[in-house]
Amino acid sequence: MSLASAPGIADIRNAAQRLAGLAVRTPLVESQALNERFGGTVLFKPEVLQRTGSFKFRGAYNKISGLSDGERARGIVAFSSGNHAQGVAASAALFGAKAIIAMPADAPQAKVGNVLRMGAEVVPFDRARDRREDVVQPYLDRGMVLVRPFDDPAIIAGQGTVGLELMQQAQELGVRLDTVVVPCGGGGLVGGVSLAVKDASPGTAVWGAEPEHFDDTRRSLEAGKRVANEPGYSSSCDALMTSEPGLITFEINRRNLAGVVAVSEQAVAAAMRDAMAHLKLVVEPGGSVALAALSSGRIDLQGKSVAVVLSGGNVDFDVYSRMVAGV
Amino acid sequence: MSLASAPGIADIRNAAQRLAGLAVRTPLVESQALNERFGGTVLFKPEVLQRTGSFKFRGAYNKISGLSDGERARGIVAFSSGNHAQGVAASAALFGAKAIIAMPADAPQAKVGNVLRMGAEVVPFDRARDRREDVVQPYLDRGMVLVRPFDDPAIIAGQGTVGLELMQQAQELGVRLDTVVVPCGGGGLVGGVSLAVKDASPGTAVWGAEPEHFDDTRRSLEAGKRVANEPGYSSSCDALMTSEPGLITFEINRRNLAGVVAVSEQAVAAAMRDAMAHLKLVVEPGGSVALAALSSGRIDLQGKSVAVVLSGGNVDFDVYSRMVAGV
Repeated sequence: MSLASAPGIADIRNAAQRLAGLAVRTPLVESQALNERFGGTVLFKPEVLQRTGSFKFRGAYNKISGLSDGERARGIVAFSSGNHAQGVAASAALFGAKAIIAMPADAPQAKVGNVLRMGAEVVPFDRARDRREDVVQPYLDRGMVLVRPFDDPAIIAGQGTVGLELMQQAQELGVRLDTVVVPCGGGGLVGGVSLAVKDASPGTAVWGAEPEHFDDTRRSLEAGKRVANEPGYSSSCDALMTSEPGLITFEINRRNLAGVVAVSEQAVAAAMRDAMAHLKLVVEPGGSVALAALSSGRIDLQGKSVAVVLSGGNVDFDVYSRMVAGV
Repeated sequence: MSLASAPGIADIRNAAQRLAGLAVRTPLVESQALNERFGGTVLFKPEVLQRTGSFKFRGAYNKISGLSDGERARGIVAFSSGNHAQGVAASAALFGAKAIIAMPADAPQAKVGNVLRMGAEVVPFDRARDRREDVVQPYLDRGMVLVRPFDDPAIIAGQGTVGLELMQQAQELGVRLDTVVVPCGGGGLVGGVSLAVKDASPGTAVWGAEPEHFDDTRRSLEAGKRVANEPGYSSSCDALMTSEPGLITFEINRRNLAGVVAVSEQAVAAAMRDAMAHLKLVVEPGGSVALAALSSGRIDLQGKSVAVVLSGGNVDFDVYSRMVAGV
């Protein structure tokens, strides 16, 4: 596949216009304590404050707003562990479109409850046994439109608005960013962000962060081709448990990323606690991997200006308190 | 005392200019679940994301920036349970001024640690036994400048920038606010916010919220004169345990407030959990009283547009998890 299907900066700007007044322009926040620990200036972009509690609203709304009235009237279908599901459900509701979401049976209750509250229908599936494509096929056969979680130019462009805002906000603060670190599941967020960052500042390094055992993008970049994760592992980072990079996202990320850091469960829990103590933000496990990556020693922080995306905050209370208390 | 010492809208606008690029322009965030529960549109202004973790940076910085070079060279002194202390310490550090802060011995460790990290000196005192004025007197005798926590026009004007931003942001969203609800300790925040709100929209009701047993402003408004709290009570809301309203703040609040709601410890804990689950924000007990007040039934929410200030997030983890888990 050629890069012809990757979105360009104009697509990201267009998405930003569509999202104006609907998506939260999440602020950049920082902590003196974390700056001192890391030896640089770290600016956090908390997409936990985004509508639906994660960045996923941006891509889903951009995609659905680009459909025809006829397509929207036939209804929307999606598969997702929860954050994309909420983004799709909220966006479909804004257009008055029916939405059916296939969600893993072990998805966090907070995420399932939110999807139901937004008026979507939830179809549970078994993450290990069922192919999600098979679960949604009957709905596609009826003419409903699939909104993919990441491997779609309109989705990537929507997520890229995180990067557009981040670069504008850093400029407003008079900060020249050396590095941007972004959580990576299927690669739509980090891919979209990298397009916006590289457009504004080609010299800024963009890093991805993945949970251990789900570091398919890291290993794919090393291998020079898309490789899938080994089966049989689990992770607290339900939002990042994709099986392999997308075709489009991999093409973007192989060009734009300086590298990807894989982080341990322990590092994720410590990052969640840091976000609570120093940023006053509730960040879900998958949303905290970019902060966790700062402690890996892999990314040069000394004297640097670094932006970190905290991509979501949809976590059940018992999981949250157990992980944060266990540090 | 006449209202001549109350700040005007020009003072608040001037404070906003001084704070531009230094204070975080905290966003307005909302939750569909909370909107549905309350039957209206509730927009939250999370000052937990403010520099130092509470709104207090705004007033302290505005005050200290208005001092002469000579005054700043003599050093700053303040007494505070912690949030004002952090605001003063951070502001003094930005000007390279020495700061000495008298803090109650039972202040949250998170707050004491932050003050120390910002380079200020901490002088502990006994909240029940010592008069804080006596604790700081020796430093004033040496010529250091007292930065009061609330009863000072420059402090009130700085806190008022919360209201200025809130009204601008609501307008950007196309929302006409019926009601604004604000935590109240000494009354500097709610007073300053009320000045900005009433300037922009005289018909918008401004409510205060206080913890039970520390509802001195509520009882003072009823009595028509300043009355102090009964001694001997405690509260999780360390940030709001002032003994009585200020002279200037009471004059502003008796003119501008629709009323004050006193909330129970249980309502505070429930509000902290709501902020975690639905807003992804860590809010300290005192910072959550305005959200807690929404559940009191005292404020008409049905079909209304309401703004709620979440004033701070500096809480120790053990207190936080105990309160949130106990709901």
